[in-house]
Amino acid sequence: MSDTGVTVKKDVDFSEWYVEVVLKAELADYAPVKGCMIIRPDAYAVWEKIQQVVNEKIKATGHRNTYFPMFIPEAFLKKEAEHFEGFTPEVAWITQGGDTPLEEKLAVRPTSETIMYAMFSKWIRSWRDLPLKINQWCNIVRWETKATKLFLRTREFLWQEGHTAHASAEEAEAEVMWALNMYKDVVESYLAIPVLIGTKSESEKFAGALYTTALESIMPDGKALQMGTSHNLGQHFAKVFDVKYIGEDKADHYVWQTSWGITTRLIGAMIMVHGDDKGLVMPPKVAPTQVVIVPIPFKGLEAEAIAAKTKEIQETLKAKGISVILDDRQEYTPGWKFHQWELKGIPIRIELGPRDLKAAQVVMVRRDTGQKTPVKEADIPATVDQLLQEIQDNMLAKARAILADKTTTVKDYEEFKRVVEGKGGFLKAAWCGSPQCEAKIKDETGATIRVRPFQKETPTSGCVYCGKEAKEVVYFARSY
Amino acid sequence: MSDTGVTVKKDVDFSEWYVEVVLKAELADYAPVKGCMIIRPDAYAVWEKIQQVVNEKIKATGHRNTYFPMFIPEAFLKKEAEHFEGFTPEVAWITQGGDTPLEEKLAVRPTSETIMYAMFSKWIRSWRDLPLKINQWCNIVRWETKATKLFLRTREFLWQEGHTAHASAEEAEAEVMWALNMYKDVVESYLAIPVLIGTKSESEKFAGALYTTALESIMPDGKALQMGTSHNLGQHFAKVFDVKYIGEDKADHYVWQTSWGITTRLIGAMIMVHGDDKGLVMPPKVAPTQVVIVPIPFKGLEAEAIAAKTKEIQETLKAKGISVILDDRQEYTPGWKFHQWELKGIPIRIELGPRDLKAAQVVMVRRDTGQKTPVKEADIPATVDQLLQEIQDNMLAKARAILADKTTTVKDYEEFKRVVEGKGGFLKAAWCGSPQCEAKIKDETGATIRVRPFQKETPTSGCVYCGKEAKEVVYFARSY
Repeated sequence: MSDTGVTVKKDVDFSEWYVEVVLKAELADYAPVKGCMIIRPDAYAVWEKIQQVVNEKIKATGHRNTYFPMFIPEAFLKKEAEHFEGFTPEVAWITQGGDTPLEEKLAVRPTSETIMYAMFSKWIRSWRDLPLKINQWCNIVRWETKATKLFLRTREFLWQEGHTAHASAEEAEAEVMWALNMYKDVVESYLAIPVLIGTKSESEKFAGALYTTALESIMPDGKALQMGTSHNLGQHFAKVFDVKYIGEDKADHYVWQTSWGITTRLIGAMIMVHGDDKGLVMPPKVAPTQVVIVPIPFKGLEAEAIAAKTKEIQETLKAKGISVILDDRQEYTPGWKFHQWELKGIPIRIELGPRDLKAAQVVMVRRDTGQKTPVKEADIPATVDQLLQEIQDNMLAKARAILADKTTTVKDYEEFKRVVEGKGGFLKAAWCGSPQCEAKIKDETGATIRVRPFQKETPTSGCVYCGKEAKEVVYFARSY
Repeated sequence: MSDTGVTVKKDVDFSEWYVEVVLKAELADYAPVKGCMIIRPDAYAVWEKIQQVVNEKIKATGHRNTYFPMFIPEAFLKKEAEHFEGFTPEVAWITQGGDTPLEEKLAVRPTSETIMYAMFSKWIRSWRDLPLKINQWCNIVRWETKATKLFLRTREFLWQEGHTAHASAEEAEAEVMWALNMYKDVVESYLAIPVLIGTKSESEKFAGALYTTALESIMPDGKALQMGTSHNLGQHFAKVFDVKYIGEDKADHYVWQTSWGITTRLIGAMIMVHGDDKGLVMPPKVAPTQVVIVPIPFKGLEAEAIAAKTKEIQETLKAKGISVILDDRQEYTPGWKFHQWELKGIPIRIELGPRDLKAAQVVMVRRDTGQKTPVKEADIPATVDQLLQEIQDNMLAKARAILADKTTTVKDYEEFKRVVEGKGGFLKAAWCGSPQCEAKIKDETGATIRVRPFQKETPTSGCVYCGKEAKEVVYFARSY
């Protein structure tokens, strides 16, 4: 563990604070390869928790995990023109195997639509083979030229990509929404991060999709972060890769497809949204360690009794399925341990000293609020359960308040620019629907349309940029 | 599902039989990229089961999962000379990102020792940081020039690699044996494949290791398959990557290291060892589906009653944690379904027809023996439990018999050559310990030393090749 705590305050230099928390809480480290990172055990455990929850949800609905090669022939990428243009600028290319140059260079997958659908074309014969619903957990490479940022933008990251083929447009649409809402539940209920959902504008959609839906949240520095996407691919790829089925009507039909994904950047969002000046704050439902017990050492017989009692508490909590560490190391002081476990964001700390022992109690300390409460020995398991839930709820409520606070309804472009430069966050504004206005706003302010909400509001003013008749109210923001 | 069963008999053309089973049981498919494969859901589910079991075992012993970049700078690979020589002939190289040539080409990981230990050097400071025990599940690339084979040898595969650093040689040795025995248990208890364990000879050890231990089994065609390895790296890499710690004695020491791994080739071994002329036979403990229920259709009221009853049986078994499919599709006949599920190796089939309904019973059919037994409705859950265990045990017992049958003790080189060319399998033979004899045997017969057993037998004859005094009895075989 690192020897010092976080030295930068979150509201003084957010970016520097973030890097310090990630490195000092040992969530990740810079790799020796530029733009790459190492996901260390405490962060990887959060990813495993996300995997477990998502796997349960996708398997319960008939999706199955699979693994496709990460090498994609250049010719495949080229088949869907929009897709190729969207991805080739950031593709890493394999050109050599051993000492031998390859005949055709191979892309390291930036996403797997093309290689998967080439196989769908072979596997899908009739309506009996539909729907085909698969998923894979894998690494993805995008050779970023922009500055990279731990978890949020690295040249390699981990993700999950769901890919489905359906007999009808309606089924595909339902699948898109199913995936989006599944993600919303995972992100809000487990990571305690509230999100907006909606569709992307044409210019922000996935390269090759009919339309893209997304989850967006706002970070404490006022920048939006895309937390996941679910695409309706229509029949674009089906036509290019010839994915057809013979219907019950004996005729040939192209399938309707979807793809959807979330990535390890969710871990970055969790750190940003919940962390504080002491370091990380882990939502209990994804925390690799939910409780840490620190015995307060004392000489003599009492030390032995304290050691025995803390061990006993650990066993009791473990038996209840709570992940708990007993930090009985002799080489560190209690104060040093407190700081370390606060830095690492463990939701609950239990202290037990000589006076507590006499009083048959412990002191429980909440990481989210710092609140200390004496708890009678007999009440420990029930109190831990209750506190973990309270902390989870409180973290989501706090994050909801931040999201609300960082959302501003703007009436005109002057106000728009003022808010973008000022507090940032989401700008709710009327839009005429023209890509030109969207592009001008992006050029002039750096803000893009993050989502067009599903529940349409009637605009009460003209387009925030051109003033002409607005078609809808959308959310703009500068983003990561 | 494919429309036809396996057309080649296992003992007529083993190699062709294997390919047919893999493709027709939809375990894998050839990828559009040469030498690569797609792991399809039924095989990936076996891998997930292996992951679950291994994760439980490694986490219970204090190992933690992590993720390192798959890109390794050429300079890193070069640091350990033996390691570099061992791996560079089959490294895939990234030389271009987007349109830009890279300054230093990057290897796609053939294994992660070098990049991991560069970080160990940074993370490990004192004895307090030891042992460091991490693991990662990831994809691995080795640009094979030999003919590839589904699951057994492909240019990309999935594996798990454990890496540990210890304060003493003794601890590292214990770790090597712990990993080896953990693998033995997973392979024997779950995949029902018996293995030999021991050390590799110098010429067969991992490039850069002090010594390598391995699990080896024999396939039905008489060729050996390496099922996993556990390496003692000694201080080789520690010295090259400067991985040192300050001991309790305040002095600097190099750490002692181990690495160990198993790969998706285990799935190939499972198919080879257990499959038969009807297709795959899945060991119950790793089968994605343990039971398939096939209602035998009948017109009229009975059809409804059968549908209701099979549904009820499915729910009962599900509630007991058994993975069960009810195949009530109308578009296929029972006979077609029987063949399909036999092809896919489901351990138990339950049939329910009009006569069974009347008799308040079902017919249970074991995939491993084909045995059919009527089972009273009330006895179904208990009988399924018992049968699954019996099948698992029977499969291991059968495989043990094959292993014993395919192991021959040979006295001299004439016999050695005769057995290699004949039944193949393991050849137990005395060896003088000289790499020259080992190399000659390999050149002349294609057989290599697969393991040097831990429990040494006293040789009763001279070296099988040179006739001089033998040091030990080892297992030779031709291998995959």
